[in-house]
Amino acid sequence: MKKTDVAKKALALHKRLGGKIRIVPAAPIRTKEELSLVYTPGVAAVSSHVAKHKKDACMYTMKGRSVAVISDGSAVLGLGNIGALGALPVMEGKSAIFKTFADIDTVPIVLDTQDADEIVDTVIRIAPAFGGINLEDIAAPKCFEIERRVIEALDIPVMHDDQHGTAIVVVAGLINAFKVVGKRMQSARIVVLGAGAAGTATAKLLHVAGAKKIVVLDSKGIVNRGRPEPHKRELAKFNTEGITGGLAEALTGADVLLGVSGPNLVKAEDIRRMNEKAIVFAMANPIPEIMPDEAKRGGALVVGTGRSDFPNQINNSLAFPGVFRGALDHGVTRITDAMKLKAARAIASLIKKPTATKVIPDMFDKRAPKAVAKAIR
Amino acid sequence: MKKTDVAKKALALHKRLGGKIRIVPAAPIRTKEELSLVYTPGVAAVSSHVAKHKKDACMYTMKGRSVAVISDGSAVLGLGNIGALGALPVMEGKSAIFKTFADIDTVPIVLDTQDADEIVDTVIRIAPAFGGINLEDIAAPKCFEIERRVIEALDIPVMHDDQHGTAIVVVAGLINAFKVVGKRMQSARIVVLGAGAAGTATAKLLHVAGAKKIVVLDSKGIVNRGRPEPHKRELAKFNTEGITGGLAEALTGADVLLGVSGPNLVKAEDIRRMNEKAIVFAMANPIPEIMPDEAKRGGALVVGTGRSDFPNQINNSLAFPGVFRGALDHGVTRITDAMKLKAARAIASLIKKPTATKVIPDMFDKRAPKAVAKAIR
Repeated sequence: MKKTDVAKKALALHKRLGGKIRIVPAAPIRTKEELSLVYTPGVAAVSSHVAKHKKDACMYTMKGRSVAVISDGSAVLGLGNIGALGALPVMEGKSAIFKTFADIDTVPIVLDTQDADEIVDTVIRIAPAFGGINLEDIAAPKCFEIERRVIEALDIPVMHDDQHGTAIVVVAGLINAFKVVGKRMQSARIVVLGAGAAGTATAKLLHVAGAKKIVVLDSKGIVNRGRPEPHKRELAKFNTEGITGGLAEALTGADVLLGVSGPNLVKAEDIRRMNEKAIVFAMANPIPEIMPDEAKRGGALVVGTGRSDFPNQINNSLAFPGVFRGALDHGVTRITDAMKLKAARAIASLIKKPTATKVIPDMFDKRAPKAVAKAIR
Repeated sequence: MKKTDVAKKALALHKRLGGKIRIVPAAPIRTKEELSLVYTPGVAAVSSHVAKHKKDACMYTMKGRSVAVISDGSAVLGLGNIGALGALPVMEGKSAIFKTFADIDTVPIVLDTQDADEIVDTVIRIAPAFGGINLEDIAAPKCFEIERRVIEALDIPVMHDDQHGTAIVVVAGLINAFKVVGKRMQSARIVVLGAGAAGTATAKLLHVAGAKKIVVLDSKGIVNRGRPEPHKRELAKFNTEGITGGLAEALTGADVLLGVSGPNLVKAEDIRRMNEKAIVFAMANPIPEIMPDEAKRGGALVVGTGRSDFPNQINNSLAFPGVFRGALDHGVTRITDAMKLKAARAIASLIKKPTATKVIPDMFDKRAPKAVAKAIR
């Protein structure tokens, strides 16, 4: 489909549906007896029980099977800060994906505030009905603080998917890509273009996975320890070669380029500076940092994007449904780095013989959410 | 069913279901093309459109068809202040009723705070995804302030159902009960036992409906203008006869007793003080202020309760689904007293020939939500 066709078709579909989710009773209400069990007087026994035995809420209410997808609309897709209503169609889409791929009942919540304190307070206050919190499309750097504070306050799993869902899938794809090019993560230089939510979490998870040479760039060049933002100073530590400068300096002699920034920032001649058998995941969506054919013209061997119309779609939909499915199934209250790494390895292992055009499972591969869920425990 | 059976069956049903609602995609996601329309890249066109044209959110997102049912768990059924998790089964039940009776997609939200300021802030912040707010099971008197402030802050319909849903159905039942006993609302003395959310709103709507002699009692007796709570001072104005004292004084010569308080507070000898052809709605749930047979022994002619196992079930489920259906259908942003009264009259009019055992439609009467929805415009 052409881009304009997709837009037109999507608008028509959304208008026809009037919202992409439906909230339906789990059991029919056809008789007074059925009504007396789901509502008064029967429900009083359930309310009393749950109020006394709070842990049983997961058994007797939606809490055991539901996740809230919460956004303030400050960093929606590649569209930027378009606010709560602008974020709503995306949150509804995630909700539909959660149900389709992992049978999780997900409530989209979009917030009429972009203040970190207010977001944290609000998420904590509405948390009781939910078994997990998926933060979404919240701008960096406030997303880091919000996630940390909500995790500390709640006893249910909390994950900012733009960070960790992306990181898990990128690491999964890289594990297989390294096999294809015959290199090792430990000795490869990995360049991460973009120091927002996704770039930061990806660099960190790569570090946990054993990568020793990670160079992160933002719009001002290679991030160094003199940067004002704490998360960028932290990322600078992964640049163990002490490389300075911009994209050209970072890429000269690099093995991997991970694009989590914006459209058309990289050219074939940039890729040419990289080592032989380069890996390029250009994941800006919908327009990547470099189109696959141009990356190959620059000499890249394995190329991935965030799009479904090219090989190697690196998309966090492979991770987040399974992450929360596993957390709910296994009573996990905190999603650790070790779990994320296990999830990445589980996704990678689904491709028995990786090739340059197949380093990551298809988004509809039903084994993926199951494998991820198994890893989150 | 016996009470213990209902409790046992309700617990078993809730455990088997694991929550009473499901959140499902409005359209299936089976192919990459379908996924590209509900999620990226297609959803970007919808997000951009909605962000620019906020009014269109009702057409392209869940906002046009969804209501949030929000409680702080401070006054749940007759169970009192049992907190957020205790309230959750009730909110899920309301959600199931909303869908069953009015095809409204309803999200249960239970709050981990009982502070009025925090509740108001939280409701306002999570409002963007919703086309209406149903406040529920919030204790008086803070429920009055919370409702008022949320109504003022938002441009979508907001209603505290314990107040107005109850008031609408009581007025509907009374309209027909007066026909049965051959009296007029304007000249009858109506005693309201209970000055909480339901009692307060019922007295006020009766006043709007033309009742001139309304005596409200709480646990301290007939409320008078010397009471500290502003809402009780306001109710005292409806006591135009200037009656003082307790239940006995209020009932002597009264025509109607409306119980919205607690179990077993009224005896047959209390009813005997009332005028001939008395009307008694004893709506405490699940155990009424007086059981129907005892009320009749005291001389009452028309008797109603909140229960489904006696004639004349006075239950707000007859009102709230239609109220929000009407508000969503007709773009109503504020539910006025005039609309509530029209809704009450619409419900009453469904009973062509009221009798002592039939003053109100059955809860499964499908005409009721439709008639109410027509009145809310």
